[in-house]
Amino acid sequence: MGRHVYWCPMRWSDMDVQGHINNSAFMVYLEQARIDLFFGHAAAAGVGTIAQGVVVARHEIDYRRPVLYSAQPLRIDLWCRQIKGASFRAAYEIYDGDVLAVQAQTLCVPYDLEAGRVRRLSPAERSFIEQYLDEQYLD
Amino acid sequence: MGRHVYWCPMRWSDMDVQGHINNSAFMVYLEQARIDLFFGHAAAAGVGTIAQGVVVARHEIDYRRPVLYSAQPLRIDLWCRQIKGASFRAAYEIYDGDVLAVQAQTLCVPYDLEAGRVRRLSPAERSFIEQYLDEQYLD
Amino acid sequence: MGRHVYWCPMRWSDMDVQGHINNSAFMVYLEQARIDLFFGHAAAAGVGTIAQGVVVARHEIDYRRPVLYSAQPLRIDLWCRQIKGASFRAAYEIYDGDVLAVQAQTLCVPYDLEAGRVRRLSPAERSFIEQYLDEQYLD
Amino acid sequence: MGRHVYWCPMRWSDMDVQGHINNSAFMVYLEQARIDLFFGHAAAAGVGTIAQGVVVARHEIDYRRPVLYSAQPLRIDLWCRQIKGASFRAAYEIYDGDVLAVQAQTLCVPYDLEAGRVRRLSPAERSFIEQYLDEQYLD
Repeated sequence: MGRHVYWCPMRWSDMDVQGHINNSAFMVYLEQARIDLFFGHAAAAGVGTIAQGVVVARHEIDYRRPVLYSAQPLRIDLWCRQIKGASFRAAYEIYDGDVLAVQAQTLCVPYDLEAGRVRRLSPAERSFIEQYLDEQYLD
Repeated sequence: MGRHVYWCPMRWSDMDVQGHINNSAFMVYLEQARIDLFFGHAAAAGVGTIAQGVVVARHEIDYRRPVLYSAQPLRIDLWCRQIKGASFRAAYEIYDGDVLAVQAQTLCVPYDLEAGRVRRLSPAERSFIEQYLDEQYLD
Repeated sequence: MGRHVYWCPMRWSDMDVQGHINNSAFMVYLEQARIDLFFGHAAAAGVGTIAQGVVVARHEIDYRRPVLYSAQPLRIDLWCRQIKGASFRAAYEIYDGDVLAVQAQTLCVPYDLEAGRVRRLSPAERSFIEQYLDEQYLD
Repeated sequence: MGRHVYWCPMRWSDMDVQGHINNSAFMVYLEQARIDLFFGHAAAAGVGTIAQGVVVARHEIDYRRPVLYSAQPLRIDLWCRQIKGASFRAAYEIYDGDVLAVQAQTLCVPYDLEAGRVRRLSPAERSFIEQYLDEQYLD
């Protein structure tokens, strides 16, 4: 299906004292995009384990343009890369109107919360994630 | 002077529904460490321009161990790398007791907020930052 | 025009460790509703001074039902009470589906940020606010 | 023992675009003060049930003076009022240096999370809370 699009609302309180959306707020925006895909859409597709059973191992995030608060949501394009037995990357582009404002990727690791250790992707999880496979990423 | 040490208080609300400190909260912790050094200590040393006039261009952050909320603060070691004419990197290690929980670095870019463009480090800024120069970083 | 309706998105990170939306998150929801009316709609109506020039002097908030995170937004009904020369109250009801979850009111005080003192409502501000006048409030 | 004193660190990101600590940040400060007393100190005194088993039913908060970010913590005085069979009030004063900046109170209700209903204070909880009893509150 290619990339997943999530329209991300900003909040007034995401602005810092300089009047820009604070860099840490974008981490919350990326989380909302992951929740939308891996919790909402995955559960609707019968794959309820990704959101609860995946932890963040690494983020990389590039801030390309400052963003001002607006009642208009940002558009987050989200896709998956480097899908392996026990990890995959979520990649993102955040657009403010037509402007690419932020580019990021997250190393996601399936995790058995009860056992407290890394686990392998289940076939159902892999199958869901592969629908959003796109290796492109501008380093 | 080597690395700067900042003792970072956590908040109950930094926990997510799984009972761990949420990954995005660490971005705020890193910001507090930068504010402590580049705003507080730099201003006390007569270099008031770093905190207001430096923007974040990129973060990389590795989550090595989950962190639970505690009234005891985390220890953040902060130092500077790759000091160039118009950029430098802030590098960090976050310790939860004796455990290295998070490792990160931030590409910092001096910025002229009024003119809205990148600027060069002033000699006073460079001189302050170089006191915390340490090129070591475990990739 | 009566009550203003704002559809308020929740965030995953608004949940606390017990799995409920944290009580402090609702303060941010109320702020978003005020911003939507007093910043967005007021500016569109040519009254740009309310959002920037009004401070919060007091909140009262009653939590009637716990709220769970959902991708569906909450509905906030917002109206104005006790409009005086130099203050008014914003009153709110927050609905989670059909359930009244939270009821609140905020004492708002027009403020001259530059002079650093309370000021009177301008005729244009009063005229805008009076469109949302409704004295009803269930104590 | 009278009033409990909690020294509350602020964060740079608690500031809003006007350069003041945002009104919603104080809700998080009050939560930290409650956690410090009802979770930390209560558990140390062998009363581990208050923090996990008490929900917030109502807040009232008065903002008396704007607060600017500082590396110096705010002082929160916390005490208990109107201790009844199935509720009590936490009352607070927040001082910025010598200045009373915020005054607030919270209606706290013991709650059985598993059964999903209000419960009565246990004798051990009541005994702990009564150490901080002080009915004074400036309405």
